[in-house]
Amino acid sequence: MNTHMAQEIAEQPAAVSRTLDALLPLRGELRRLTDGVREVLFVARGTSDNAAAYGRYLVEIHAGVAGALAAPSLATHYRVERTLSDTLVVSLSQSGETNEIIETQAWAAGHGARTVAITNDPDSSLAEQADVTLPLAAGPELAVPATKTYTAQLVALATLIDALAPPGRSLEADLRRVPTEFERVLTGSPELDDAVGVLNRAEALLVSGRGLAQGTALELALKLEETNLRPVRGLSYADLRHGPMAVIDSSMAVVLVSAADGPLVEDLAQLAHDVRATGAATVGIGGTSEFREACSIVLAGPDLPETVAPIALIGPGQVLAERLARHRGLDPDVPRGLTKVTQTDRGSTR
Amino acid sequence: MNTHMAQEIAEQPAAVSRTLDALLPLRGELRRLTDGVREVLFVARGTSDNAAAYGRYLVEIHAGVAGALAAPSLATHYRVERTLSDTLVVSLSQSGETNEIIETQAWAAGHGARTVAITNDPDSSLAEQADVTLPLAAGPELAVPATKTYTAQLVALATLIDALAPPGRSLEADLRRVPTEFERVLTGSPELDDAVGVLNRAEALLVSGRGLAQGTALELALKLEETNLRPVRGLSYADLRHGPMAVIDSSMAVVLVSAADGPLVEDLAQLAHDVRATGAATVGIGGTSEFREACSIVLAGPDLPETVAPIALIGPGQVLAERLARHRGLDPDVPRGLTKVTQTDRGSTR
Repeated sequence: MNTHMAQEIAEQPAAVSRTLDALLPLRGELRRLTDGVREVLFVARGTSDNAAAYGRYLVEIHAGVAGALAAPSLATHYRVERTLSDTLVVSLSQSGETNEIIETQAWAAGHGARTVAITNDPDSSLAEQADVTLPLAAGPELAVPATKTYTAQLVALATLIDALAPPGRSLEADLRRVPTEFERVLTGSPELDDAVGVLNRAEALLVSGRGLAQGTALELALKLEETNLRPVRGLSYADLRHGPMAVIDSSMAVVLVSAADGPLVEDLAQLAHDVRATGAATVGIGGTSEFREACSIVLAGPDLPETVAPIALIGPGQVLAERLARHRGLDPDVPRGLTKVTQTDRGSTR
Repeated sequence: MNTHMAQEIAEQPAAVSRTLDALLPLRGELRRLTDGVREVLFVARGTSDNAAAYGRYLVEIHAGVAGALAAPSLATHYRVERTLSDTLVVSLSQSGETNEIIETQAWAAGHGARTVAITNDPDSSLAEQADVTLPLAAGPELAVPATKTYTAQLVALATLIDALAPPGRSLEADLRRVPTEFERVLTGSPELDDAVGVLNRAEALLVSGRGLAQGTALELALKLEETNLRPVRGLSYADLRHGPMAVIDSSMAVVLVSAADGPLVEDLAQLAHDVRATGAATVGIGGTSEFREACSIVLAGPDLPETVAPIALIGPGQVLAERLARHRGLDPDVPRGLTKVTQTDRGSTR
């Protein structure tokens, strides 16, 4: 069965290439817009919020600019009065029609912020009201669980943040390598069937990662939950260490995602070792050889530096979620109770 | 059986009074330290991070100053270089000896931030290295799950943020009312035994809240997980609406926490209604009469304005977690695998 989701997962290397070709030429305009910006505030929910988690780390690490995730209710419900004159507000929404994201962007603009919208639809309300729009060249997405929209959002964030970085520091060469590596990790690992079996048998699922790849872990948890209609916890490394480690046992499966380089790889290998010692099935995606040896099942990750790796690192997890759903007789394209345009609040917006 | 945890829960109204008496006189010093601050960055993990979630909302709503939760790995592992000259860094640690919190505070000070430490131990490393320390007058905490430390942290945060607020806006009168209301909500609701039974029977537990009370929901989830050694998910209202709503069914129990006033009460009542419609047992803590009618079981919350309500709103949830653990034959004081001084990273700090 060739689901829309499987097809859209496979389209991602091409979607990344198209999005890079469309957005890299906008860096000059982005540099002008963001001149003097001291903070970047990301506004998003759901899958887009998982993309924003990557943006938050990348803007601090690559550009040396403060990054934060917005709490939209401060704008939409509490109507906080404060200045945002040195702030760049980056709003992410697949449809560009999620009311609370549009309202939060309007609140920010009304308080002096400069605004960038990242969306699939350049004619959406969100795009029309932003100072600059970065349209995603992902093409129409038919499956409810977002895949190519998410990875195109990461590409847009990397391009934007590259424009904020000091002169002489550029992600362009690494970004150009992403499509080839993405293609490679999507061809499927020999242990994919084993991973599907392990996740199917587990009584509870937990996904964790850290730093630049923390958003990848949260997105994989959401993808597994959306497609398989079971609760799946996505936790940061620190949140896992500060409590839930104590409740992991052999009835559970834990998926860990790790980049292949960077200052966190040793901690992730140690975490894999500790999780496996609890008796839980430990599925690793990416990581170093030390990490892979510590895991019971391994899916290969991309050979890319940590700053751009998350774009392709989600790939094996997307494949896993789609396969698991079909293995369990579910339709990953139209999960029960979910719709494509998501609203946080019911009824009229306030 | 009178556990340390039960005793420490009961001590909280007195601990809140003592902490208020100790800290309210420091507001002048805090005003001088924070003059010209444009952003408050909270540094914390675990229970302290749930306290910080309250601080983040309160500083924006009450003081009109930007608030954000730090990602410590940006300091401890990525060693980000950026200025924090207009930033107040507020570090929270029960012991004052969690290495990554100490390191992140040192990183912030080295990059120009002003620093405030909130801790039980005024002789700890964290306190010694801060510009100003707000010592908690909670007394020694013997149970591993923090209770009176957490609520004293909320009191310290409210006092600090009150010092940041514009002239003429003060929380003092409302804070003075907290101990009496706290006492009242701890006397126990008639439906407490029912709530224990429902949570004991449920296959999966989920806790949610929003805005100023979101931290309360996260803290209750952590408390239930620590004391009962079962995975419990704590989710913001928005994260719940954006996915996991679809996986709630009659095998689950959902605990919702709500203040009695503020711009979010209608949404929480609607959420309670929608959760109950899935067939899940719906335990409500606090809220309006509309909220309480929508829930299947209700525990009374404090009659306090939303800005200070979270200090006492956690009370019925703490009682619930402690009772549930004993009902299940567990010792809430010393849960398996947890220790009082928590480190995120193993071995030497980096």
